[in-house]
Amino acid sequence: MICDKGYEGAGVQDIAAAAGLTKAGLYHHIQSKEQLLFEIQSYGMDVFEEQVLFPVIGIADPLDRLRACMEKNVRLVTRGWSKEVTIILHEHATLTGEARAQINARKKRYVRFLESSFSEAMRRGRIRAVNPKVAAFAFLGMVLWIYKWYRPDGPISAEKIAADMQDLLFTGLESGRVKPGRR
Amino acid sequence: MICDKGYEGAGVQDIAAAAGLTKAGLYHHIQSKEQLLFEIQSYGMDVFEEQVLFPVIGIADPLDRLRACMEKNVRLVTRGWSKEVTIILHEHATLTGEARAQINARKKRYVRFLESSFSEAMRRGRIRAVNPKVAAFAFLGMVLWIYKWYRPDGPISAEKIAADMQDLLFTGLESGRVKPGRR
Repeated sequence: MICDKGYEGAGVQDIAAAAGLTKAGLYHHIQSKEQLLFEIQSYGMDVFEEQVLFPVIGIADPLDRLRACMEKNVRLVTRGWSKEVTIILHEHATLTGEARAQINARKKRYVRFLESSFSEAMRRGRIRAVNPKVAAFAFLGMVLWIYKWYRPDGPISAEKIAADMQDLLFTGLESGRVKPGRR
Repeated sequence: MICDKGYEGAGVQDIAAAAGLTKAGLYHHIQSKEQLLFEIQSYGMDVFEEQVLFPVIGIADPLDRLRACMEKNVRLVTRGWSKEVTIILHEHATLTGEARAQINARKKRYVRFLESSFSEAMRRGRIRAVNPKVAAFAFLGMVLWIYKWYRPDGPISAEKIAADMQDLLFTGLESGRVKPGRR
C-alpha cells in the first residue's frame, strides 16, 4: 500500500484492511505508522545488504568489486517484488528522528564503501583520476534512478541494462589511466 | 508545502493558509488539488525547457550539445529555488489521466532528445558505440538523482559536480571510438 500510494497517501485503515486486520488489530503489531515505515525500510536495507553489499565487499580487486556491485544493485532494483527497496528510495525524507538516523547510517555506509572502492581503484592504477564522491553518486544515480523508468515488460532486459551501465561508467574510467610506478 | 511535505502530506487547508487564503478562496483559483499539482509541474517543465532544453537544442555538434545539456541540467537541479522541478522528479507517479499524459509527453520529449543526440554522436564518430536508451537514462540518473543528496552548503560545488559528471560520462565515451570512414 505504501509503495503504491506513498506513505502519506496510504491510510492506516487501508493498510489494516489489506492485511486482513482491524485498525486496532494492526496497532497490536506496530506502535505507529512511522514505526511500520521504519520496519519496512530496515527490512529493505537487510535485503540490499544481503544481496548487494555483503557478496561483493570481499572482492579483492576494487574495479571487479565495483562492477559486481553495480550488476547486483541493478538486479535488485529491477526485480518487481523488492517494494521495500522502492520505499527506501522514494520515501527518503519521510522518517524522522532516531529512525531516520538509523536508516541514513546504513545508506551512508554504502556511499562510503563506493567512495573508498573508487579511491582504491585509482591508487592501484585500475582507473583514471576522478573525484570519488562524485563517482559514487554518479554510480548511485545511474543505478537507483532505474526504479523510475524501468518496466519489466519493456524493450531492455535487466541484464542488458547492467552490462551497458558497467560499460558506460567503467570502460571509460579504465581509459587514460596511469599505471602505478609509471612516472 | 507540496515540495516539503509531499503531495499527499500537504493538506489543502495548509496550502491555503500558506498562501494567505481561506480554503474557499484557494478553490476560487484552482478546481482541485490535482489541478494545482498539474500547474506546478507544468511551470516546472516551462522552467526546465527554457533553461536547459531550448538553449542547447540548436548546438550543431551532438557531443557539445550533450555536454552543455548536462551542465545546464545540473545547474537547474542544484538551485534551491527550483522546487517545481523537485516536485516533477519526486511526484512522478502522482498525477492521473490527461494531466499525467501531458507532463509525461514533455518528459519523453527530453528522453528522445537525449537518445537521438547519443545516436547522432555515434554516427558522427564522436563517441564509441553504446545503447542510446541506456546512455540517455544513465545521463538522467546521474543528473536527476542529485536532488536526493546535494546540499548547497556541502563540500562539492554545483560547478564541480557538473564538470566531474561530464568527465565521467563523456571522456569515457570519447575513448575507443571509431572515426567515420575508418574501416
